[in-house]
Amino acid sequence: MQILKTIKQLRDFVAANPENIGFVPTMGALHSGHASLIEKCVAQNKTAIVSTFVNPTQFLAGEDFESYPKNEQNDAKICEELGVHAMFAPEAGELYFDTEPLISAPENLASVLEGKTRPGHFDGVLRVLNKLFHLTNAKRVYMGKKDAQQLLIVRNFVKTCFLNLEIIPCEIVREKGGLALSSRNAYLDEGQKLEALKLSHSLKKASNLIAAGELNAQTIKGEMLQTLEPLRVDYVAITDRNLNEISLIEPNNTIILVAAYVGKTRLIDNLWV
Amino acid sequence: MQILKTIKQLRDFVAANPENIGFVPTMGALHSGHASLIEKCVAQNKTAIVSTFVNPTQFLAGEDFESYPKNEQNDAKICEELGVHAMFAPEAGELYFDTEPLISAPENLASVLEGKTRPGHFDGVLRVLNKLFHLTNAKRVYMGKKDAQQLLIVRNFVKTCFLNLEIIPCEIVREKGGLALSSRNAYLDEGQKLEALKLSHSLKKASNLIAAGELNAQTIKGEMLQTLEPLRVDYVAITDRNLNEISLIEPNNTIILVAAYVGKTRLIDNLWV
Repeated sequence: MQILKTIKQLRDFVAANPENIGFVPTMGALHSGHASLIEKCVAQNKTAIVSTFVNPTQFLAGEDFESYPKNEQNDAKICEELGVHAMFAPEAGELYFDTEPLISAPENLASVLEGKTRPGHFDGVLRVLNKLFHLTNAKRVYMGKKDAQQLLIVRNFVKTCFLNLEIIPCEIVREKGGLALSSRNAYLDEGQKLEALKLSHSLKKASNLIAAGELNAQTIKGEMLQTLEPLRVDYVAITDRNLNEISLIEPNNTIILVAAYVGKTRLIDNLWV
Repeated sequence: MQILKTIKQLRDFVAANPENIGFVPTMGALHSGHASLIEKCVAQNKTAIVSTFVNPTQFLAGEDFESYPKNEQNDAKICEELGVHAMFAPEAGELYFDTEPLISAPENLASVLEGKTRPGHFDGVLRVLNKLFHLTNAKRVYMGKKDAQQLLIVRNFVKTCFLNLEIIPCEIVREKGGLALSSRNAYLDEGQKLEALKLSHSLKKASNLIAAGELNAQTIKGEMLQTLEPLRVDYVAITDRNLNEISLIEPNNTIILVAAYVGKTRLIDNLWV
């Protein structure tokens, strides 16, 4: 596996391996959730590229950009073991310019849920992915359903800007107890990890209610909020696959999303119904 | 030559002609200025695509979107005669979606000169070109120096977003008297066409002064403004190739730009020194 640090190295690699490139954009600190994306990418493409760039423009002032977990050596080891062909781990100076255009994610998708708490976050996500998509010349890009809103916004971006690639959504990977894997779980101590289970438990509760025939979103949200107590909840939302809030569950067109704080750590989780 | 009206038709055409595609984005109403771009495109690429889409998002409210000259039949005739392989002439509904991201051209390049009088204009230009570049899968894109600021902004866009294509700048084409060709010249009557010559005359004046050793931008601008009288001048500017105003001419790094009204018609012209 090659570890690429510069645009030039990446361009040379892509020029030498032009066909059928799969790409997994990450911010490093790789865990088993990433591994499942990477495995799929390696299996489905002749060439697999993983980026581990921690993108400054998707962090708001005061967020955890400076302290975001980094472990390049371990990332490289995981990628190598999974059969990745190139890991792209550049400095920010490689990707960003003093004078460059900005991208604004669509208001109706990006101003709700995560975007309400993190205004501008998705603009930064699109800004960096737009660069990485072109640089890697990827035909397939693997993204986790854990970041559901991100997935929908990127899919809309690809569709409406006519990018020549396909976004492949990948299932959420969970610890045994149900906790969705996240690089930010590294911030949690053992007690907090137990507290954090309330997020997945609330979704399990929703899932059970729906299985029992409950379709009223308000009722389901109420039960979820009880399950989440005493966590500080940012939102519990039940939406269609365009992030419009709905009052009745629509099978195959619903996402149930939750964001809550465990200590100072903000966690998200969701369920696609 | 094929005339393509839908995204699907364009995609099918590109899939059948994937290699070495050259592209000339226009808004139709083709004239000899466009023809020079198209000739270069046809000569340098296996496949040449011309778009004639009049892009609504680059017109401001109250501008001439509704009345912008249209002549698809004549455009097709010109393209055919020049050896173009496909002309893309879609309806706006093909290219735009209710929910899609916006692109903002960089403030320092886009808020001056044309951008001052036409705020948001270049955002619309980038928005449509981003789509067309991906759809045509072009490797080379031909743009006229007449729209100098547009050329610089698009070049910055391609560079900073790492698009896999090259922007080829093409020289300004002029009528015998010096008037730079423009689709908007169609708005001028014969008397106004004579008035409009003042733009190219002012640039000729600047050129002569520089040839005679005058490098002071203020002096040159003064002489140009005299030449332009009694036209209503929007701006006369002398900048480097990043559109920063300069006080001394720098050979090979200077653009002299002028915008003025002839009747209700706003015309632009420029000189690369």
